[in-house]
Amino acid sequence: MNDNSSFKTFADKTRPSIKEGIQRVITQSGDHGCGGLKEMITYQLGWTGENAGPEAEGKQIRPLLVLLAAEAAGGEWRRALPAAAAVELIHNFSLIHDDIEDRSDTRRGRPALWKLWGEAQAINTGDAMFALANLAVLNLEDTTTNEISLQASILFNSTCLRLTQGQHLDIHFEDLDHVSYDDYWLMVAGKTAALLAFCLEVGALSAETSPEIQSFYRDFGHYLGLAFQVQDDILGIWGKKDKIGKSNIGDLIERKKTIPVLFGLNQKKEFYKRWSSGPISPEDVLELSQLLEAEGSLAYAQTEAERLTIQALAALEKAQTQGEAGSALRELADKLLNRSK
Amino acid sequence: MNDNSSFKTFADKTRPSIKEGIQRVITQSGDHGCGGLKEMITYQLGWTGENAGPEAEGKQIRPLLVLLAAEAAGGEWRRALPAAAAVELIHNFSLIHDDIEDRSDTRRGRPALWKLWGEAQAINTGDAMFALANLAVLNLEDTTTNEISLQASILFNSTCLRLTQGQHLDIHFEDLDHVSYDDYWLMVAGKTAALLAFCLEVGALSAETSPEIQSFYRDFGHYLGLAFQVQDDILGIWGKKDKIGKSNIGDLIERKKTIPVLFGLNQKKEFYKRWSSGPISPEDVLELSQLLEAEGSLAYAQTEAERLTIQALAALEKAQTQGEAGSALRELADKLLNRSK
Repeated sequence: MNDNSSFKTFADKTRPSIKEGIQRVITQSGDHGCGGLKEMITYQLGWTGENAGPEAEGKQIRPLLVLLAAEAAGGEWRRALPAAAAVELIHNFSLIHDDIEDRSDTRRGRPALWKLWGEAQAINTGDAMFALANLAVLNLEDTTTNEISLQASILFNSTCLRLTQGQHLDIHFEDLDHVSYDDYWLMVAGKTAALLAFCLEVGALSAETSPEIQSFYRDFGHYLGLAFQVQDDILGIWGKKDKIGKSNIGDLIERKKTIPVLFGLNQKKEFYKRWSSGPISPEDVLELSQLLEAEGSLAYAQTEAERLTIQALAALEKAQTQGEAGSALRELADKLLNRSK
Repeated sequence: MNDNSSFKTFADKTRPSIKEGIQRVITQSGDHGCGGLKEMITYQLGWTGENAGPEAEGKQIRPLLVLLAAEAAGGEWRRALPAAAAVELIHNFSLIHDDIEDRSDTRRGRPALWKLWGEAQAINTGDAMFALANLAVLNLEDTTTNEISLQASILFNSTCLRLTQGQHLDIHFEDLDHVSYDDYWLMVAGKTAALLAFCLEVGALSAETSPEIQSFYRDFGHYLGLAFQVQDDILGIWGKKDKIGKSNIGDLIERKKTIPVLFGLNQKKEFYKRWSSGPISPEDVLELSQLLEAEGSLAYAQTEAERLTIQALAALEKAQTQGEAGSALRELADKLLNRSK
């Protein structure tokens, strides 16, 4: 994608407003003597602390999806800003808790929040961001209508519940020898796809489109999320090291039960034997990833990603998007699914 | 309080409906293959698992306060049920996370959730209950109006944020040598009083009383919460062992900076010297509590509790409560502040 893409133009135009929207909800809530809590929240958002800046802020794909959907559905992106702030806050809430739950030390090239402030404060800061996210989405009453704000809040918390259901399964899978494809898709639908589906749906909702059109946006987000996760699974085994030298290909060492691994285990061939025989060291990774590829696992995962992308784009087609924002959504789908890290 | 009190009559009548209200929101959300998550939620609520039952369910004071306020303000308790379900869910959410943050092994006579299922699942289950609590409060749209549901949701999440601000300070105080009275009250206002204030206010809101009357209910809850905490602080040092033999008087050993301790430290006498000289063992507790009492700490805390109780009752007076529910609220205030454990 070149720098003059519809997506980049839109992202450059709207990013400052997304940040303002988040700042607004943090400020309007007051700090009640809790400057320390605010410091942790802004660290997590990448605004403060060592190495604060664009890298630490992350790509902010989710709020951009909200705003793009609002425009593509014939609305105005500014009216959807409270929802965009909400999804960025809830995404960061889930990152804080996931990092504790998964014992991940780093996040976006910096120490994870819990490594700096301890687990207790980090759990609590995540909870504060959950409350802030709800306050943000409820602010839709200022930019749209009471009815839309209510409906969006119900959708939002149903989505948050789906996130925890997905995370529950993901943690649970660590203890299992065998995970079925069905259970895998159930997990991904909650952990990854639910929030993307919400982003698209709430954008369309803010534009006051029909429930049917909203459901096409939701479907686009859902399949985009599933495809995105399969792509992530592929990169976790066959990806390249990123520019700061951090390996993205640690999934085999961590024994994550991703879709290529489930396929490999189902073959009951060499990969299955090797996986079942014990721990996997960094030295084994290359050989094992080649074994998986030879047994058809990479091809299978790529076919799945393509199938899901086609479903996503078919839903987007039905949504009858308008103008540049519609093009930007298609571009973004393309960008997410053809990334190399 | 005898068994024919207004409070007990009301509690016996409404408790089954509170449980139904919570069950409803859990069921309507679906489990998406997450029976295990539902199992943890119902364990936390005291409904399932070893020793499930009334003891494990807890006193459910908060949902009862919501319903009593609704009745006392001239409304119908059934219309406030979604808010009652929400406060019981959010109270349990905060207990799950607090137990992890404080490393507490037991809760209501049973192993804390994280001791049975591990930290990762427990953090995530708390998050699920946060989402469920929001879905519950939003259900007010079915029993009241869209406007009340929206207003209650905003109040609810502002309250949740206050809870996390109080918890932030509480954790932070562990690292400090000196805590001021002002900071203490700020912490208690968030950690204990905010949710009680919400319970009373949302009950009155559901009855569609004026904003002024709602604010009197809120004030009653706020001061009740502060007084309740001071009483808790007193019991944490001079309380009795409860019937199952568990000591409630461990606050000195844990070096909690409660109001009697802050008073004692401010005297800069014997208690201060002893506290500053190092760890406090179970054998030291009796002597230290006697020292504190001799230096005026117990009398000070009791005076504070009385002062706050008077403020609570003055607010309740202004709220012009109606009927039996008003009497029950006064009874409950009396019961909470004159308990021995």
